[in-house]
Amino acid sequence: MSDFAFRVTHSEGRARRGVMTTAHGEVETPAFMPVGTQGAVKGMLHRDLEAAGAEILLCNTYHLYLRPGDDLIARRGGLHAFIGWTKPILTDSGGYQVFSLAARRTIDEEGARFQSHLDGSSHLLTPEKAADIQAQLGSDIAMVLDECLAHPSGEADARTSMERTLRWARRGRDRFLEIRDPNARLKDSRAGEPAAPPFAAAARENGLRVTNPGQAQFGIVQGSVFPNLRTESAQRTVDIGFEAYAIGGLSVGEPNDVMYEMVGTTTPFLPATGPRYLMGAGTPEDLVESVARGIDLFDCVLPTRNARNGQLFTSEGRINIKNARFAEDDRPVDPTCSCYTCRTCSRAYLRHLFAVGEINAATLNTLHNLHFYLDTLRRIRESLAFGRFEQFRQLFHQNLSRQPLDP
Amino acid sequence: MSDFAFRVTHSEGRARRGVMTTAHGEVETPAFMPVGTQGAVKGMLHRDLEAAGAEILLCNTYHLYLRPGDDLIARRGGLHAFIGWTKPILTDSGGYQVFSLAARRTIDEEGARFQSHLDGSSHLLTPEKAADIQAQLGSDIAMVLDECLAHPSGEADARTSMERTLRWARRGRDRFLEIRDPNARLKDSRAGEPAAPPFAAAARENGLRVTNPGQAQFGIVQGSVFPNLRTESAQRTVDIGFEAYAIGGLSVGEPNDVMYEMVGTTTPFLPATGPRYLMGAGTPEDLVESVARGIDLFDCVLPTRNARNGQLFTSEGRINIKNARFAEDDRPVDPTCSCYTCRTCSRAYLRHLFAVGEINAATLNTLHNLHFYLDTLRRIRESLAFGRFEQFRQLFHQNLSRQPLDP
Repeated sequence: MSDFAFRVTHSEGRARRGVMTTAHGEVETPAFMPVGTQGAVKGMLHRDLEAAGAEILLCNTYHLYLRPGDDLIARRGGLHAFIGWTKPILTDSGGYQVFSLAARRTIDEEGARFQSHLDGSSHLLTPEKAADIQAQLGSDIAMVLDECLAHPSGEADARTSMERTLRWARRGRDRFLEIRDPNARLKDSRAGEPAAPPFAAAARENGLRVTNPGQAQFGIVQGSVFPNLRTESAQRTVDIGFEAYAIGGLSVGEPNDVMYEMVGTTTPFLPATGPRYLMGAGTPEDLVESVARGIDLFDCVLPTRNARNGQLFTSEGRINIKNARFAEDDRPVDPTCSCYTCRTCSRAYLRHLFAVGEINAATLNTLHNLHFYLDTLRRIRESLAFGRFEQFRQLFHQNLSRQPLDP
Repeated sequence: MSDFAFRVTHSEGRARRGVMTTAHGEVETPAFMPVGTQGAVKGMLHRDLEAAGAEILLCNTYHLYLRPGDDLIARRGGLHAFIGWTKPILTDSGGYQVFSLAARRTIDEEGARFQSHLDGSSHLLTPEKAADIQAQLGSDIAMVLDECLAHPSGEADARTSMERTLRWARRGRDRFLEIRDPNARLKDSRAGEPAAPPFAAAARENGLRVTNPGQAQFGIVQGSVFPNLRTESAQRTVDIGFEAYAIGGLSVGEPNDVMYEMVGTTTPFLPATGPRYLMGAGTPEDLVESVARGIDLFDCVLPTRNARNGQLFTSEGRINIKNARFAEDDRPVDPTCSCYTCRTCSRAYLRHLFAVGEINAATLNTLHNLHFYLDTLRRIRESLAFGRFEQFRQLFHQNLSRQPLDP
């Protein structure tokens, strides 16, 4: 019933190039998803995202649930209609943000109780609720609710958390399937309790609006930095059965080589027939290294957040545009870059705009950083098409280490 | 020697359509100049300004003098090169901002002494200094330094200020002419003092870089709300002889009808062969009414500043997008508008972006408001070409008064 599909068109080692099909069209992979937390990528209009090559957005369920609310968005016809983005959208489950609330949340078997960071109001996010909200948002890809463990954690805690994540995954998947098939009955994942009423009726009672019948749902692998937990989590999540799978709980402070090891350990246990999504990563180097280990999808706030702080990515490393030595530098940020910012602005002008606090500094920096990320993915895909990914990978790292622009 | 020219192509009553030629190209008039205070129009990239029909920018000398400094901009080749805007630029004299500093400035015959709002450093802005800074910035149109009197003022104060403005105009024009002709000697506008050294040598000593040899300079009419002072100021400013003339000291708090009366009183005394510039005005209604009284150029922060505060201009009046009644309004801001914002965003989405504090709210609102202003000027020019300005003017006011969108 889902409009979701994936096919690999080229591969080299464990790296793959492919096409992911969703209810709102196709995405060429490996792909980077710009983060549009509240229904907008900060500093970047939709048309500029499309022009830079973005084919899919990530939006945050936690933020949209609080403001303007999934009910309001559903009444507008769903997230695509509300924000005016016609291409694919992936929504996270809201879990990561809730777990980040620290003192404002408690976790138990039912779900995560939290207080809004805006007004202190109390909320309960369960695996079922996360599925319901995303059904109302109508994203093309919904994420199941998982428990996001803090790093570092001991193995015992990591196992406990992984087991809960697996139980939540079962509940989240059941709810998702019920939403997709209104004639089915809600499965009772907790033995001994009475079966729930037919979902269609329940949905009507709750006023649930399913705004995208073609929505897919991804499961999430946890297991912290323990290879045995990662492989077990992958196998048991795949056993539940989702349209595709993500690796969560990485890029949370662990060393790079540990992240790469976890990715490399996990991907062989995720179906080669579906896309693999590494959540929340990362630097341009992380993207290249993760593609080499079989990852197809990425999201990260790094290009957009760093842009607003004046940190710009270039083919030869990062620069801080606020640095005084750029005050009279007439060169573009990256002479090899073809983005609007590099075509029309000098470092001197960008430094001035940042120094005086102009909105346009954020806009121009974001345009560049996202262009750099999306172009890196484009070059990865191109190299895969020609069987030259390994060559690209080596050259990429060489350029980065050649001359540190901001020592 | 200036590349400045102006020709009227159509007229209807006192309203004119024309073409103003500058060192960086032509501007169709009547024209609205978006305000790019620090070398950027807040929330609007150059390409979007051009797409919306902006043919000339206004930049603020006071801000650019302080940051990044006219010396640095001159070393970059001037303001056009520094900010990457290839079309005409007008710079103000810096006077208006300095006079706005209130307690931080004192005025005497020499000029205005002020302390920077940024670091408290002391500066002296004289008519000569204002010309020098603008020579280094290299704008296509420089404004002479005038004294900006607070409103309201008595007639005696207004006359005293007008007389000083006229003396400053003479000094500012002399300096401008010296800069344009490096072989001339600085004229001594204060009798009895020794003649200044040859300008070219002085310029070299001061390190003055003239980045736009085709720069023009406009004189400014003052006289507060007193018709006799306005006409006298106009006649005596024209006697000094500038490329064209502006009306200053209006749109500073006086009632609308007083402003219109002052404009209507002054324009007959300004040469019909040059453009007339009403500084700092105004609302869309002000623009239409001033064109009817013979004005050709406008600048105002209203469309950009209001956009950032959520106030949007429409053909039927202003709306505050933050208003709760727009939360579920799927219509565009103005159904008759063809801007990107109106083509792709609902009021509900714009309200959400504003409510959650997204940068994109400022960008999208600014795109719309500037489009509305520039489109209003385009329609004024079109109506003038067809001898239908009076018809346009009546319809414009009818639409505005028909149904207040935000009562």
